[in-house]
Parts: sequence; C-alpha cells; structure tokens
Amino acid sequence: MLNKIMKPKTIAVIGASTKEHTIGSDIMKRLQEYNFNGKIYPVNPKGGIIEGLQAYTSVLEIPDEIDLAIIVVNAKFVLSTVDQCHQKGIKGLCIITAGFKETGAEGAKLESELLSKIREYGMRCVGPNCLGVVNTHPDIRMDGCFAESLPERGNIGFVSQSGALGGGILNILKDLNLGFAQFISIGNQADVNAETALEYWEDEDDVEQILLYMESIQNPANFRKLASRISKKKPILALKAGRSAAGASAASSHTGSLAGADKAANALLAQSGVIREYSLKNLFSTAKVFASCPIPKGDRVAIITNSGGPGIMATDAICEYGLQMAKITDETKEKLRSFLPAAASVKNPIDMIASAPIEHYKQTLETVLADENVDMVITIYLPFLGLKDIDVAEALMEIKAKNPTKPIIGVFMTKSEFFSKLSDMKVNMPFFMYAEEAAEGLHRLNQQRLWQNRPEGKIPNYNVDRVRAEEIIKQSISEGRAQLTTRESIDVLDAYGIRVCKSGFATNIDEVVEVGNKIGYPVVMKMTSKTTSHKTDVGGVRVNIQSEAQLREEYNDLIAKLTEKGLIEGLEGVIIQEMVKGNREMVAGIATDPQYGPMMMFGLGGVFIEVMKDVTFRIAPLTDIDASEMIKSVKAYKLLEGARGTTPAQMDQIQETLLRLSQLVSDYPFIDELDINPLLISEKTGEAIAVDGRIKVRLDEAVDKLGGCVCSGCSECCK
Amino acid sequence: MLNKIMKPKTIAVIGASTKEHTIGSDIMKRLQEYNFNGKIYPVNPKGGIIEGLQAYTSVLEIPDEIDLAIIVVNAKFVLSTVDQCHQKGIKGLCIITAGFKETGAEGAKLESELLSKIREYGMRCVGPNCLGVVNTHPDIRMDGCFAESLPERGNIGFVSQSGALGGGILNILKDLNLGFAQFISIGNQADVNAETALEYWEDEDDVEQILLYMESIQNPANFRKLASRISKKKPILALKAGRSAAGASAASSHTGSLAGADKAANALLAQSGVIREYSLKNLFSTAKVFASCPIPKGDRVAIITNSGGPGIMATDAICEYGLQMAKITDETKEKLRSFLPAAASVKNPIDMIASAPIEHYKQTLETVLADENVDMVITIYLPFLGLKDIDVAEALMEIKAKNPTKPIIGVFMTKSEFFSKLSDMKVNMPFFMYAEEAAEGLHRLNQQRLWQNRPEGKIPNYNVDRVRAEEIIKQSISEGRAQLTTRESIDVLDAYGIRVCKSGFATNIDEVVEVGNKIGYPVVMKMTSKTTSHKTDVGGVRVNIQSEAQLREEYNDLIAKLTEKGLIEGLEGVIIQEMVKGNREMVAGIATDPQYGPMMMFGLGGVFIEVMKDVTFRIAPLTDIDASEMIKSVKAYKLLEGARGTTPAQMDQIQETLLRLSQLVSDYPFIDELDINPLLISEKTGEAIAVDGRIKVRLDEAVDKLGGCVCSGCSECCK
Repeated sequence: MLNKIMKPKTIAVIGASTKEHTIGSDIMKRLQEYNFNGKIYPVNPKGGIIEGLQAYTSVLEIPDEIDLAIIVVNAKFVLSTVDQCHQKGIKGLCIITAGFKETGAEGAKLESELLSKIREYGMRCVGPNCLGVVNTHPDIRMDGCFAESLPERGNIGFVSQSGALGGGILNILKDLNLGFAQFISIGNQADVNAETALEYWEDEDDVEQILLYMESIQNPANFRKLASRISKKKPILALKAGRSAAGASAASSHTGSLAGADKAANALLAQSGVIREYSLKNLFSTAKVFASCPIPKGDRVAIITNSGGPGIMATDAICEYGLQMAKITDETKEKLRSFLPAAASVKNPIDMIASAPIEHYKQTLETVLADENVDMVITIYLPFLGLKDIDVAEALMEIKAKNPTKPIIGVFMTKSEFFSKLSDMKVNMPFFMYAEEAAEGLHRLNQQRLWQNRPEGKIPNYNVDRVRAEEIIKQSISEGRAQLTTRESIDVLDAYGIRVCKSGFATNIDEVVEVGNKIGYPVVMKMTSKTTSHKTDVGGVRVNIQSEAQLREEYNDLIAKLTEKGLIEGLEGVIIQEMVKGNREMVAGIATDPQYGPMMMFGLGGVFIEVMKDVTFRIAPLTDIDASEMIKSVKAYKLLEGARGTTPAQMDQIQETLLRLSQLVSDYPFIDELDINPLLISEKTGEAIAVDGRIKVRLDEAVDKLGGCVCSGCSECCK
Repeated sequence: MLNKIMKPKTIAVIGASTKEHTIGSDIMKRLQEYNFNGKIYPVNPKGGIIEGLQAYTSVLEIPDEIDLAIIVVNAKFVLSTVDQCHQKGIKGLCIITAGFKETGAEGAKLESELLSKIREYGMRCVGPNCLGVVNTHPDIRMDGCFAESLPERGNIGFVSQSGALGGGILNILKDLNLGFAQFISIGNQADVNAETALEYWEDEDDVEQILLYMESIQNPANFRKLASRISKKKPILALKAGRSAAGASAASSHTGSLAGADKAANALLAQSGVIREYSLKNLFSTAKVFASCPIPKGDRVAIITNSGGPGIMATDAICEYGLQMAKITDETKEKLRSFLPAAASVKNPIDMIASAPIEHYKQTLETVLADENVDMVITIYLPFLGLKDIDVAEALMEIKAKNPTKPIIGVFMTKSEFFSKLSDMKVNMPFFMYAEEAAEGLHRLNQQRLWQNRPEGKIPNYNVDRVRAEEIIKQSISEGRAQLTTRESIDVLDAYGIRVCKSGFATNIDEVVEVGNKIGYPVVMKMTSKTTSHKTDVGGVRVNIQSEAQLREEYNDLIAKLTEKGLIEGLEGVIIQEMVKGNREMVAGIATDPQYGPMMMFGLGGVFIEVMKDVTFRIAPLTDIDASEMIKSVKAYKLLEGARGTTPAQMDQIQETLLRLSQLVSDYPFIDELDINPLLISEKTGEAIAVDGRIKVRLDEAVDKLGGCVCSGCSECCK
C-alpha cells in the first residue's frame, strides 16, 4: 500500500539543491549520511552536481524507474511536477513543500487540485507541508526527512501531524535512546493520514508499537474500526492536542482542522484501545516501556529497593494507578530471609537496606520473579558507598535476559550520567529516574493487557417497531418541528423497546378501567381540563391507586367532586399513568459532536448532572461491552449496585436501554439530541424507566432521509 | 538556634577514619574537598593522621572550642561520646550513626536516653540515623554529608526525613543545576525536625525557598503555626510520602512513624500554605521555577512559539491548570504585526512561525512583556535550520534581565545537550523540555501568589452556652455512654448556637399549643406511644400544620381517632417539630485523625456521601477563611449557590455553623466524631438546618477533662 513510499528502491529528490541550509540540500545530505540502500536521483532544473551526484534537469530524464519522489519545489510548481511524476510512472510521493491548505482558501484550492491529480493518477502521497518519511530497516535505511538528528533504529512507528513538532520529537527520541522503525510526517494529510499509516503498519512486523501525534482525526469511524483492531496486536499510543477550547481554537487556526470536542475524542480513543497520553513526556516514557517490556499476565507489582523512601513513593504511585501490591508468598519470603540481612524487610516493598550488594539485587530479583503472585517488578537503586549504578543495572539486565516474560523496570535515583551511559548501551529493560515514571509505565502495560483481554463485543440488533418510530418522526418533520413533543419522544423510545413510563388517556369509566388494567397497578390518575389548571387544588390528581376497584371509586369521586364544584364542563378526560417510585435518577441520551458524530451519554441525572458531571460518553454505535463499561465507569454505579439496602438496578436492562438508543441513532443518524432525564431506577424492581424524554432532529437531514417535506401541507409536495 | 550546627567555625568529626568507603572517611574528605571555611578536628581513639590532619584520640583533647561534633561512631558508643561532648562544652551535634529507633524497641530506648542527655546538656542535635548537614554559604562552605556529589550553591533550604533518599536527591539536584543554601537530613528527628528547620530558616536570607521530604509530621499544630506564617514569606514545597494505605504501612515499618491519613495531611499542608507535590520530579521542577521566577501579579499567561503544535499543547496545559490565556491588547498585536511575517499569528498563542530569527524572539518577548494584560510568559523554541538553541536561550535571558518582574519560562524541545550546556551557565530563568512542565511551574507560582494574597483569617469566639453543653455531655459520660443520643447531640449543637430543627414534647392541648407557637408554623406533629409503633398507619403523623387553629384541630382529631380505635391508653404525648423542607442535603461534622487530631468535614450529604465523595476536610481550629474555602471547594457549592432557580443557601450561616463546630471541638477536644447529616438547606430560606446529629466522645479523655466518672451511680464517686 505504502511500500513505494516507505520501502523505495529508488528516490528522486525533486528540488534538490546545493544551497546550504535549504530543505533541498538537507534532504539530500540526510539520505546519503544515513546510507540509503537504494539509488538517489537529485532533480534540479539547473542540473549540475548535488552532494556528489549528477542532478537531472527533469524527473523525466532519469534513466531508471523511480519508486518515490520527494518534492521540495515551490508550491506553484507542485502540480506540474506531479504531472511529470505521473508521466514518469511514479506512484509514491512525499511532498514537503508548504503553502497549501494551511495558508488559507487559495492554498486549500491548490491542495484540492493536487488531491484530484493524485487520485486520478493512482498515486499515494505523504504531505504536503510535512517533514518527510523515515524507514530505519537495515534493508532500506531511508532518512527522507530534514530533522536535526539522524534516526535511531527501534520498534516504533511514529505519525506526526505537526511537521515542526515531528522534528523536535525525532531529536528527543534520539536523546532518549528510543529508536523507531518508521516515521511519517503526514502534514496536511491530503492523502495519507494517521489511518493510512495504522493500516499499513498493521502487518509490518518491524513496527511493534505505534505512536500518534494528532490535532484532529479525519474519519473517526474509520479510525475506530482500524485502531480497535490493530491495538489488539500492538499498542497504539496517542497524544491528541487541542483538548481545551483555547487549545482547539489555536489548533484550528494553524492547521485548519475542526475543533474537536475533547470528550468525543476521549471516548473514541478509549473505545479504540488507544492509550491516550497528555504530554509528550508521558508519551515517550510509555513508549520506552513498551519498547522492552512484555505485556504482563496480571496487575500485581512487587517493589525491590535498597532504601525505604523511594519504596514508599513507588508504593504510593502503584496504589494511585489502581495496580495491586503483590502479596509475596511465604515461600518467597523465606527464601529472601535466607540471604538478606535481618534488618531487611521481606514484605512488599522489599527493602534490602542500604548495604545491599549486587549479589542481593540479583538474588532478590530472581526470587521475586519466580513468585507466582508477582506479575511485574520495580527495582529501585539509590547510590550508596561502593556500589556503582551501571554495575547494578547490568546485573538486573542479566536477570531480565533470563526471565523475559515478566516486566521489570529499574528506578535509578542517580546522576544523569548514568542515563547517558545507558543510551550508548543495548538495554533490555527500561530505566527511569523516578518511581512515579515506573509506576505509570506498569499502569500502561496493564491497560494494554486489559484491552487485549477485553472481549470483542457485539452490536446487537433488536427487533424494534421502525414503522411506528418513523411515522412519529415524519409527523414532526412534516410540521417543520425539529423538536419532537414529549409524547412523541416517549413514543419513539417505546417503539424502540425502551422501557418507558406507561400511560394512557381515557374519557369515560370504561376507558379508564381498560387503560388502568392495561398498565397494571398502582397507577396515578390526573385530570386534564381546558378550564382548570390547578389540578391538585381541586383534587384532580389521585396517586397510588392500587386496584381496578379503587380506580373506579377514585374516578367516580373525581367526577362527583368536579360536578359539585361546577368544574365538570372543562374536563377533557384523565391521564392514567404507571406509578413509578424511584430513588435514583439517572440520565441517558445522545449528543452529536460536529466532528465525531453521535455520542452516547450515561450518568447521574436530575439536579446533579451539571454539578457532579458524573456522566460518561462513548461514540455510537455501542457494543454490548461498551455499554457495560459505560455503566460501570460512573461513580453513581455504586448507587445502581444498591448501596444502603436499596434494590440493585437491573444492569442488563440499563445496558439494553443504551444499546437500543444506539440502534436508534444508527437507524436515524439525523437525531441531533436525545435525553432521557430522568431515567428513573424503580425502587421496587430496579428497572430503569424513561420517565421523561426529549428528541431533537436535524430537520434537513431528516427530510432527506425519510422523505416528506418541512412545509405543513403545501400543494406542491404534500399530495 | 541552629547556628552552632549550621554555621560552625570548628567541627570535630568523632569517628573519623582512614579506611576507604567508610562514612568516617567520606565525611572527612567531603569537608575538605568542599573547603570548609573553619577548622576540622578528626577524632579517632587510635590517633594518627586522617586526611592530612592530626587526629585526636578524644574530643576532650582538642585544643580549641568546638561548635559542632559530627558523630559517626558505633551506636553503642554514642551516649558516652555525647557525655564527652558536653564535658568539652559542645552545643551542636550531628549524629550520623544508625541503630536507634529505626531498629525497634531497644533502639528506641537508646534514642530516648540520647534525647534526655541532649535536653539535659542544652544541646541541639541533628539525627541520629541521618546523612548529615550542608551549608553552601561562601563564609561557611560546610559539606558535612556523605552523598555522592558535592553541593551546588543556590537558594533552597532542604529537609529530608529519609537519609538515603536525601543522598539521591542531592545527586539529582546537582544534575538539575538546582543549587541549595542549606541541607539538613533529620533522620530519626530525635531533636531537630522539619519544624525546627522551618523556624530556623524563617529569617535566614540565604534560604529563599524551603523543600521538605516528609514521611510524617511530628507536631501538626506546631507545623501549621510555623508553616502558615513562613510560607507567606518564602515558598514551602513538600513531598509527603505514604499517601496510600500500603505506602503508609511501608513508611511505618521503616521509620516507626504513625501512618497518617492522607486527607488529614493534605488538609494540613493546604491550610499551612505548603505547596504539595506528588513526585520528586515535580518537586524539583517547581523548585527550579521558584529559584529564578518572581511571584506574578496575576494568572494571565502569554505563549510565544515558533511552531503550532507545542503552542497548542502549552495552551491545553495552561487551561487545564486553571490559568488564563492572556488577551493580548490591540496595541500589542499591532506592534507584533509590524515586524512578524504575515503568516504569523499575533493572537495568543503567538506563533512567529518556523522562520523566526533570534531578533523576532527578542522583539516579540519584549513586546509581550510590556502588555498590561500579560502576567507570565512561556516562550517555546523548536529547532529549525540555522537557529541554535543556546543562542535563542541567551537572547531570552538578555530580555529577562531587563524585565525582572514577570515570570518567563523557556520550553526548548531540543537535544538534552542543550540542558547540559545550560547547567554550566548562569541562568536567570527556567528552561524545560516540555510545555506541560512550564505550565505546571506557572501554576505553582500562581498558587503562591494566591496564598500570599490570602487574608490571615480569624478564629472567631462565639457566645455559646457551655454550661448546658457540658451538662449534657456529663450526663452521657456519667452513664458510661461514649455515644450521645440523637436528642443530646442536637441539644449540644443547639447550646453552641447551631441552627437545629426545633422540636418539643407535649402531653396536653395547652402544651401542644405552647410548643407549636414557640416553634412557629408550619409544624409536624407525631404521636409517641408505648403500644403503637406504626404511627403512620393510625394517623399518628400530621404534617404541614399551618396555624395554631389547625394544630388544635389536628390534636383533637388525633385524640378522638385514638380513643375511637381504643389506642389512647398507650399514648405518652406528641412531638411537635418544625417542618423543614429542604432539597439540598449537606453534611458537616468532625472526624479525628489519630495523628493530626480533629478535622472538620463539609460536603454533599445524604446517599451521595460515599458515592460522590464530594467532601472536604480541614484541620481544626478553622479560621473564617478556612471555613469559607471549605464551602467553596466542594462541587455541590453550585447547588448551594442556587442552581435552577432554587433559593441560594445562606453561605454566611453555613460558614458560622462550621466555625461553631470548630469552637465546639476546640472546647472539647475529646469529641471523637460528630456528624450533622443531613444539614438540610431550607428550600424557603436557604438556611442550613441540622436535622439529625450524632456525637461520640472518647470516654476516658472526656472524664479526665470534665470530671465525673463512667460508672452509673456507684457509691464511691457518685455521691
């Protein structure tokens, strides 16, 4: 797919230059310095010798087939250059040149013309406005990029949306001794974007983990489909910038991408199994951990230290990340006691005390790794007289080499020289300066473990009454109403099999009894009158009616009282409603993000929505696993479980409610907002009952999809 | 106070040694390598030459007055050595020797004997079981410490409770180019502890910021008194380890300190104006910021960058820390436009684009600093062709030197070489690799600003009915009840002027009316009967009684109904209660931490306490400012403010409730637990009303303090 770009045998650098400190010169230098394994053909209208190679005045003159053209000519020549590339039969482009979409309307037009050509010619293109591409595989060795540093070989596939930042990142990676396999600076992502890279790397064995720097996600649904599949095979870490409103607005001014609501992005990444980091620093330390640690079998951590303080700090961090402190077996404790001094503590954290020699580090680590209760290990070293950090590190790596299945992280609170030394060595485990970094790393490994073990999940297809739902919506849009009435909203929910508060209208005793019996007791009866608005004051609301007999009695009494008071004239009838007693008010619904589309919402409802913000979001459609995770992820889950002797909520039924809502918005993607508030949890049965509902559609889209019109009975379309 | 220890003119090293890699040898070497400004006298029973100096066989032989004795002899000789020091007239000790409290009961005994001697002899002592002391002042130059690195001069006063960790920290500080003025490793803190150091450094101009590594706080009340005063003058940063239960238990196993509940520690540090960090990494980066930044005048941040991505990330971080993105004035924008290229963005974040030369960095920074809407600046540099990081840094420092009043932080996403270079230079502003670190630093500066501007606060003294409260409590303890009844609890609250739900008991129509009129309408009337427990079923509860007339009517009706049903026999009387309608349930109370003493609690009550945990704590006694901050700090504050048209709560009255509770527990420190749950906010008036109360005392302490006994009327003490 991207082989022509990422694994070329021949590269033409169009716009190669002899002028120092220009991209056309730097790219040439880089390709050569990094010993590109294929052939490089500089192209410059002036010809001549560039970096020791004969330059061609046009790509058409090159007497060889070209896999990849790296284009650095001025923006105004890009289109004609692409034409020539096509003529030459080139299928892979990397356009470094800036001056496209990022500069405004004119540039956007140019970019759209460029894209048309690329599509027409059947090419793939990285950029424009990018930093280039890199592949460190020994068979390729392509550094087609103008960052300061030469690339370091490793297992990372890196996609950067910001060109400049990408360069900075390559520098830092080099410093951190964090190598990568392939790097793609997608720039304006006219053609190749993060999703293309993900898909390409899915089966590239060379790429063992994928890092993304993103400011926007182009096609959320496709991203989700790809990422959720690929993240099961290899970890995907992402830094998505533009989280804050101000940050998003800055992002949009600079790349022209839409300001994505962060809660939608967050939901999407979580559902895709992408590990989201909030700073480059954390992105890199997590990458460092994935670079040399296996995925653990569980979340139980043992800490080995030669000093109390850091052991405590590591314990704090482990607990704060929700990992477990491993319970060391008695057997292990006994073994440890056999060689550690009496003052040592063999309880986790295992404190070998300051006098611990290298031999104790080795023996302790080996013993602890053998413990079946231990899934991961942090080993801490604080410098003490006569013990060299690098020797300790080597000893740990020796044990690690013999025990490859459990993650081990070293915390070395020593001079930074140590880390510089390490970066010149081949290391088989990560080392950090601080305990918190190690804990975060283990947390991420565990997150990946949980994701890999997470069942696929299914999007169920319920039997629903589409005809009825559609009729109701059509009625509303035919009247030009984007907002359905409460009654209509509740009826649509009912048509989709969502448990709503039952009710019915009756105008005489027979109907009253019929409706009452149909709903089932207890019921509430409320009069509706054209003349009397204060129902309660005239005894027009009767609650807790327990039987047909009582219902008859209450209805007759109501009629009698109204007659007596001379109010019977205005009476239209009575509404008979199921009497729902609930002590837990939840909220469920749908919100639409302009970029990410429909999002499902669930959480604590009532007056607490805005105050507690105990609400979670997922991108639709939901799988059963998504829905179940939504329910468990809110704090109010404890209330649902039935704290203080209340009836536990019917979790399956709540889950089904969310899944049915998800099906509803999949069927009618023009639903803009939907709120069930409250979704009342019955005190008695624990059922979740939609007591109030509100649906709003995007009128034009709805008309498009369902037909009909938005007029109210014109002669033209409403025949 | 600690001058003999921290600013000695003469030091005796008792236990000095010629043996390599021993503390007795290392300390000698360090003192000399760092060019101690006074005289060093090694003491070793064997005499001889140690590190080129004549060793004395006993401290008594030294022909000079000695200010400080650094003691590294075996634990068993420490007491006799201290005796000799006393004989010699030495007043300052630093006991590095381990083998005391940290080893168990025997060691604890030794330590308590040691402390007795120190007190008796009027000495001050750092340690035992510590790393030593350092003072980098050019007039002193004392490195009395056996860490790996020689100290770096700077403005930090550092106290470490963990000796080993202290050593690691000194290494890291050196690496970070973070100098300190004084360092005290307090070890087992038999005498000198964090509080002693705080007090000593209060007026030491050399120490401009104080860093604490703590695993426990010895005297919380004293710490609070000192820290809250000193933190107004200089920032105090603390890392308190042992936050998690597991971490606290590890801390306690290793230093013998009590496992402090973290919420109490958190409250104490916050009330003391101490900036709490959760990792060493953050502790150091914050220290780096305070080392060269002034406290800003406000919280408005401008970001200057040469690349979009990092600008967005910085904006995200600024917003997430609750700081403001500065609104650049039109004047500033115009000025910026006059020299920046058209493609640049002059809106905050200001993007000078990749081509920005050094001159643009200087001009932009200067222009932005002059903007009255800007309080702090982050300047970002990403490497681009032809621009050297170190040159840009120097340019920024030049501008900084001319503009000392606004904090500026550099974010340089460049190679780590840059930072190594910086550490050999004199810098006047902090530089970080990542935007998030800069944002955190500015956040901390702002936190210190807010603390310095925070009013002192007063602990009011309300006129309360102590006699009544004491009588009630005495009654309970005289009956051996640690738990007061609901009635008693409410009455104690009432005696302390807390607004409780009014109620009274009546046995006949006259009493009923009297009580009803006293309480004021509406009221609730509940029968109390020895024979009828289901009050509601027999019509024994009458709510919403609006007037005396209605009350009479309801009472007479009740009597009639009970008589009719033959239930009048068991009737004891009726409880008349104020009818409180509230739609917001809060909780207020007191909890006791075994280490930190009584803590005040406030937050969202009812079923949500455990689920939402929207509860805040402060150490008692509260100032009015503390109480007001408590109320504002919970999420439910929005509910109190009156969301959705409800009556706003009477904030002053809630504040007074908390302050009166605080006074109650100050008067009776043996109150172990007190809960007002719910503290109902009246729908009508917004008043906070204690509807239910529960007080529990520590019986023995209560008896000690109030007299009386815990028997129930014995002949011995209850005459």
